[in-house]
Amino acid sequence: MKISRECYLCIYTQTLNLTKRLNLDEEKASEILRGVAKIISKYSLDVTPPEIAAEVYEFISETTGIEDPFSKEKEAAVKEALRFKNILEKRLENSEDRIFDACKIAVAGNVIDLGVNQEYDLKKEIESIFEIDFKHNDYDEFKNRLDKAQSIVYLGDNAGENVFDEVLISELKKKVKKIYYFTRGKPIINDITLRDLDGLEIMRLAEVVDSGVPTPGFHLKFAGENAKQLFYEADIVISKGMGNFECLFGECQREVFYLFKVKCEVVARACKAGVGDYVFLKNDK
Amino acid sequence: MKISRECYLCIYTQTLNLTKRLNLDEEKASEILRGVAKIISKYSLDVTPPEIAAEVYEFISETTGIEDPFSKEKEAAVKEALRFKNILEKRLENSEDRIFDACKIAVAGNVIDLGVNQEYDLKKEIESIFEIDFKHNDYDEFKNRLDKAQSIVYLGDNAGENVFDEVLISELKKKVKKIYYFTRGKPIINDITLRDLDGLEIMRLAEVVDSGVPTPGFHLKFAGENAKQLFYEADIVISKGMGNFECLFGECQREVFYLFKVKCEVVARACKAGVGDYVFLKNDK
Repeated sequence: MKISRECYLCIYTQTLNLTKRLNLDEEKASEILRGVAKIISKYSLDVTPPEIAAEVYEFISETTGIEDPFSKEKEAAVKEALRFKNILEKRLENSEDRIFDACKIAVAGNVIDLGVNQEYDLKKEIESIFEIDFKHNDYDEFKNRLDKAQSIVYLGDNAGENVFDEVLISELKKKVKKIYYFTRGKPIINDITLRDLDGLEIMRLAEVVDSGVPTPGFHLKFAGENAKQLFYEADIVISKGMGNFECLFGECQREVFYLFKVKCEVVARACKAGVGDYVFLKNDK
Repeated sequence: MKISRECYLCIYTQTLNLTKRLNLDEEKASEILRGVAKIISKYSLDVTPPEIAAEVYEFISETTGIEDPFSKEKEAAVKEALRFKNILEKRLENSEDRIFDACKIAVAGNVIDLGVNQEYDLKKEIESIFEIDFKHNDYDEFKNRLDKAQSIVYLGDNAGENVFDEVLISELKKKVKKIYYFTRGKPIINDITLRDLDGLEIMRLAEVVDSGVPTPGFHLKFAGENAKQLFYEADIVISKGMGNFECLFGECQREVFYLFKVKCEVVARACKAGVGDYVFLKNDK
């Protein structure tokens, strides 16, 4: 998915918010806002949003000397998510379709986001998640694929969300031999990286793969050779979150199941849904 | 008043909004958003907000070929304001202090703004204006000055607002021999220019002066020699609106009475008021 005019402003808004979150003084904030404006000015409409974001956040890291500006937020998000895990697993016990309900749990975790949205309410999201209907509900096709699948590539998204992914992956693991869980290649916003998963259950449930991408989304241009090969060879690809959608939708020439909450107008237009909708969308190209 | 970090984003937000207001296609919008980002990237914290805005809007005019992108909005705003003029003048009839109430009427017109705010409700503003209290109410000092004054420079602001200014200027005219009403030197956002005043009462109430500034605020660096001289020689200067405040506050070495509605956090901090407050502030420097 290529950028729209709104993406320039969104990335610039994220930049201002980050200068405040990091308590930068006015001089440093101005230096960053000027530098980011210069970066933005280079990009025409033929890139995906995460490509601009990657250069912007890299520049902010270099200018502030803070390699992982969201490290504390990521740690806190994982901790918070773990508090809910038991409750979520309990709710699966009486489920008529454990995999479907686990998909809903996984997408509830997608509310965690510090890029586009500055705040989120995980508790509220969890309470309401079982009542929602997916927009573009391609779950039946997903289920068909699953019956014949040997391998799944599961593209992780934000820190904290990974705990919810574990619930779904636990269920998928009962049906499929091999699951690969992809992380980003370096810290970018609050996206999950390999080192954020240290000691978590996902490490034994799936083969965790550092995808190598510096983008807040799995962008094939930046992916490692191994990750790219796994991506194209997997029987099923599950793509969590908007960042992965932005990188892959219409860009990857393979079937992908997108599972995410729509958080902005640009993505809403691209996937023909509304802001706030939950999407379970199969796309072939 | 110098810019703060928020001003970069505010001007960029105005740019995106303008690409939509002008119904530009994505390619043209992208060209403008990239060009404006480049402009923004040049400005450090030692400029006033209207200086950036002037270059940005000039660039947008050049790129789109539209010299006065807000001409229709300006015309409509003047027409709308004229519909209210009789009602406002009627309300002055029973006033205990006609000049004070006329100041309130003038500041009510300051709600008209298409830069920072995209929408405004003039009717609502007028209905409530007589109930409000000014923040920094320096009216008594203003009244003292008025008793001895021979000349007033009155810095106009937006189109439409000028009609409300006429009500105040009518009252001031009973006390003071000479009133100069300053306009911008060229179309900038919806600010008032000489040609927007064609046929209006202000032309006979005051001597209308084209200040020469291309900025959305009376910036001395760009003002014509005559305008600058009148500004410094006047017994009283009344500065309407945020744009004039941003250009002059702490920048002009003379006493100015600022009369405006606070519309953003940056100006609120500068004048020690809250967003939404009405200010009648005397400042010496």
